[in-house]
Amino acid sequence: MKKMLFPAGVLLLSVGLSGADIRFPAPQKTGGMPLNEALSKRQTIRAYLKKELSEQQIGNLLWAAFGVNRPTGKVTAPTAANRQEIRLFFLTAQGAFAYCPETHQGKQITTKDLRSLAGVFKAPLYIVIAADLDKAASKHYAVMDTGYVSQNIYLSCASQKLGTCAIGSFARIKGSEKGQLLRKGLELPENIVIYLTHSVGIPVVD
Amino acid sequence: MKKMLFPAGVLLLSVGLSGADIRFPAPQKTGGMPLNEALSKRQTIRAYLKKELSEQQIGNLLWAAFGVNRPTGKVTAPTAANRQEIRLFFLTAQGAFAYCPETHQGKQITTKDLRSLAGVFKAPLYIVIAADLDKAASKHYAVMDTGYVSQNIYLSCASQKLGTCAIGSFARIKGSEKGQLLRKGLELPENIVIYLTHSVGIPVVD
Repeated sequence: MKKMLFPAGVLLLSVGLSGADIRFPAPQKTGGMPLNEALSKRQTIRAYLKKELSEQQIGNLLWAAFGVNRPTGKVTAPTAANRQEIRLFFLTAQGAFAYCPETHQGKQITTKDLRSLAGVFKAPLYIVIAADLDKAASKHYAVMDTGYVSQNIYLSCASQKLGTCAIGSFARIKGSEKGQLLRKGLELPENIVIYLTHSVGIPVVD
Repeated sequence: MKKMLFPAGVLLLSVGLSGADIRFPAPQKTGGMPLNEALSKRQTIRAYLKKELSEQQIGNLLWAAFGVNRPTGKVTAPTAANRQEIRLFFLTAQGAFAYCPETHQGKQITTKDLRSLAGVFKAPLYIVIAADLDKAASKHYAVMDTGYVSQNIYLSCASQKLGTCAIGSFARIKGSEKGQLLRKGLELPENIVIYLTHSVGIPVVD
């Protein structure tokens, strides 16, 4: 009977959102740096200020990476045979979250800080790119599709004047102890495989 | 003694360029569609007008894909361990060309029209993304790095109001007869493996 205490609209908005989940502000789907300039500034940056990123910045990055860009539910990066097997997670001081492209929300998995398991760089944010191999056209294409998503993160970082570094070796998971701990922290089932992590932050200016 | 007929400067400019090679106009490294809008418009388009593309359009695409964006020689897409193993080729009605990022030129391989070997769509341009496995960190990373380059082509197409479709199955080469003919046409040695082709053209508007 508890639900009778809330008007239907409020209930609808609350579905699946606990207090610590993140409802990002709407992604900025216009504006940003002109593409050619973002491509000119695309680079790997490994040293970041300690400053946390805003929800707008993080939301923009996740939307750019693999966000819904059409009313059909299609997304910013293609996937082989449109399997949309990519799964994004992000790690902050507040814990670890799964990104939901459909709702543009972060669903909290744990309040533990897992960032040190995702890479060696001190960064306010790590994004984890994984693939659901039960959905993917093949492992070959899951790996390739990861590249598309990673480039979107690089370009969105360039546009937002953020620095990032894609890290493959750290996350290759099967052999790596930290990789296994990261998988465990994210509560990943066998079919979800991490292919890359991205450290992200405001670049240290020399 | 033939070279004495030409002033030294002309000789320098001509090195490696035969009459049919293409010296692209400088790529547009500024401007273009704002990144977020390009991401919003990122999509797969499979039907194109018969109109040929200009050298500026093709050069912009190749530069966006894997062009030099810094004085260090580094490029628009990262590669694992910075091995820069990606090789781009492009196919037009005029023949097949290898793209040289260092000089932003197209070196003609053949005057034969190989486009029908690269995909099933009638397109004025095909771009072929291949990797030199002797240089790559691994086959895994060569496949992933291909994804970065392909996304750059998608975004440059969105920005230039062109349509494109990445094609993996057609180029997977080892098993495919057309793939083998494409390899032969491009005179590829064993270590250069094609991972994707991209059809590109001006979209047919319904």
